[in-house]
Amino acid sequence: MGKSIAINAGSSTLKFKLYEMPSEEVITSGAIDRIGLGDSDVTIKYGDGEKFSETMNIQNHEEAIQLLLDKLLSLKIINDYSEITGVGHRVVAGGEYFTDSVVIDDEVLAKIEDLVEFAPLHEPANIMGIKAFKKILPDVISVAVFDTSFHTTLPETNYMYSLPYEYYEKYRARKYGAHGTSYRYVSARAAAMLDKPIEDLKMIIMHLGAGASLDAIKGGKSFDTSMGFTPVTGITMATRSGDVDPSVLQYIMQKEDISDFDDVIDILNHKSGLLGISGVSADMRDIEKKAGEGDHRSQLAHDIFINRVVRYVGSYIAEMGGVDAIVFTAGIGENDKGIRAELAEKLACFGVKIDDAKNDIRGEERDLSSDDATVKTLLIPTDEEVMIVRDIERLRK
Amino acid sequence: MGKSIAINAGSSTLKFKLYEMPSEEVITSGAIDRIGLGDSDVTIKYGDGEKFSETMNIQNHEEAIQLLLDKLLSLKIINDYSEITGVGHRVVAGGEYFTDSVVIDDEVLAKIEDLVEFAPLHEPANIMGIKAFKKILPDVISVAVFDTSFHTTLPETNYMYSLPYEYYEKYRARKYGAHGTSYRYVSARAAAMLDKPIEDLKMIIMHLGAGASLDAIKGGKSFDTSMGFTPVTGITMATRSGDVDPSVLQYIMQKEDISDFDDVIDILNHKSGLLGISGVSADMRDIEKKAGEGDHRSQLAHDIFINRVVRYVGSYIAEMGGVDAIVFTAGIGENDKGIRAELAEKLACFGVKIDDAKNDIRGEERDLSSDDATVKTLLIPTDEEVMIVRDIERLRK
Repeated sequence: MGKSIAINAGSSTLKFKLYEMPSEEVITSGAIDRIGLGDSDVTIKYGDGEKFSETMNIQNHEEAIQLLLDKLLSLKIINDYSEITGVGHRVVAGGEYFTDSVVIDDEVLAKIEDLVEFAPLHEPANIMGIKAFKKILPDVISVAVFDTSFHTTLPETNYMYSLPYEYYEKYRARKYGAHGTSYRYVSARAAAMLDKPIEDLKMIIMHLGAGASLDAIKGGKSFDTSMGFTPVTGITMATRSGDVDPSVLQYIMQKEDISDFDDVIDILNHKSGLLGISGVSADMRDIEKKAGEGDHRSQLAHDIFINRVVRYVGSYIAEMGGVDAIVFTAGIGENDKGIRAELAEKLACFGVKIDDAKNDIRGEERDLSSDDATVKTLLIPTDEEVMIVRDIERLRK
Repeated sequence: MGKSIAINAGSSTLKFKLYEMPSEEVITSGAIDRIGLGDSDVTIKYGDGEKFSETMNIQNHEEAIQLLLDKLLSLKIINDYSEITGVGHRVVAGGEYFTDSVVIDDEVLAKIEDLVEFAPLHEPANIMGIKAFKKILPDVISVAVFDTSFHTTLPETNYMYSLPYEYYEKYRARKYGAHGTSYRYVSARAAAMLDKPIEDLKMIIMHLGAGASLDAIKGGKSFDTSMGFTPVTGITMATRSGDVDPSVLQYIMQKEDISDFDDVIDILNHKSGLLGISGVSADMRDIEKKAGEGDHRSQLAHDIFINRVVRYVGSYIAEMGGVDAIVFTAGIGENDKGIRAELAEKLACFGVKIDDAKNDIRGEERDLSSDDATVKTLLIPTDEEVMIVRDIERLRK
């Protein structure tokens, strides 16, 4: 069936992963950073631990993709473009249009372009990536995989804000969520590990990375999720505030003499969260180190992070009327056994209990539960890229 | 000990209740509405079901209070001002200064004036009420009872937002909560009804009125509460949005061409919540009637209200690591047995179960729990005014 490539284009970045299909063997992966900003960094990992790395000037995503394809040839990772038989693009916002991944044609592309205002920083990069591949590999199937489509099953009660209804009618102002591809992968793995039909399970997945969210999944369908209209809401993140009272923002605007609300949203996205509270770092590892040295604000940042996850887990247990399993994934979830242990202890009243020995692990699939736990706790490394290339095969006529 | 009066001054209103102390017998109660707006309505209930009612022009709170005292004399409710031996004022914002009610002297009044920016609509009215009584009854003890002081026990983790820390350091931007006097009254009654020391109890009080909030109370102390810097946050209310993603507000501002964020806060306070969703009414009774007739948006408003309460109850159980009792109070909580039954059913997974026969009641103290419930459900009508006059006696030298 050939090779399929998963593409994740950000405003100045391009990440990729090339798979042999259907074996799902990873042939190469890498990233191009600082596109259009000068001194772009190109990194390509391939073969038996080999790595290509270079700094050069790359003006735009089309140039980045042309360079990537050239390098795949010159590094002899592929011998001909024709070996690439599928391209899958991560797209941030799918709105209410896209309830599943989709083969990209002109109509689909036009709809994605309609959605730019839902993710003004990310969607244009996704579109540039799609167009560049279409230009260079016009005959290869191109699939869009949306961060939001997994959440299109949310009940109206859970996706609507308590705002004047006309804003939904006129502008589709509602909760869309994110990390959907991760949740789709992890929830399927969780059901397999629990050896139960996903239709019978209630689970809460904690995708705890720099961007972080939770998802309540009932019968295999996303039932509620912590991110909102955009990813700024929900739990405390690396630099994002998560939930915050708009009236305190009004007060801060007055005190700081900020007249443009866009500037506030910028602060909520880039200067808040762990970084804003601690003043030290956006990285939980740094926070924990500083907290260990007695830094109060770092300890506070850590404690608030734990508290916000606990709040959401509790609210999702209440909304679903119970839970069978909680699952840790993404950077912090996969690698920080201390956070996992602390969260499990806080959730003991629901029957969560993990085994310290089983929890002494990083980045591997494992059931962490104690024998006497009534709610299972799983560790499942996420894999959004493999879902993207699987979607290509699923949607190929 | 004489008579004490509890005063609740709003921007254009003055509510009062006069008690015989220490018996706590209510001698008279009433309200003056539309102060300063022309055609002010004066209503005074007294004696054995008697009622004085008149429309006149009252320019300001001082005039309102002078009129009220004159009427108390002319209606022979009191024979002389000297019978009033205590005045207690509800004050909305106590900030971090006031951890308890306090006898008002010049220093206290100056601090309350400092807090105006925390409640710019309400605090000035409270101050006018305080000053007017001080002028007319200069020698009578005057006590301020704050909506926020019960919440000054919140742990830092729970009152801090995940914003740049400097906003707290510089401006005390944090969660303050509200309805504290109600929670203080209801939690004490709950402990008495459960016949347990309040120090041993974890409870969640649902103050469900036009303004509505929840409070997690651990060992008698407020541990977390759903309102925030101001009362606009938390659960869906009559006209207030409760929690909402700031990024969806940014999007709506763009679409509706709103440049001033103050206008958005106004929408969140006055045009959102049950009213905004349903388009029908801010009153749950109207919403339920319309929903019963098949109106989708009214049903949605009702369902969202239920959902938001359920979310908070779940998160508070998680935060406290369990719960012994949940308590219904305020307008909807005291009078709407349907809402109580629905909420209890949604919370069944935690051991909440109510007895339908016991639940068939309005506005009376009662344990509603089924015999096999593991979490108690109580109905306790709130009484903020009696707490105000009790505080006068407690603080009297």
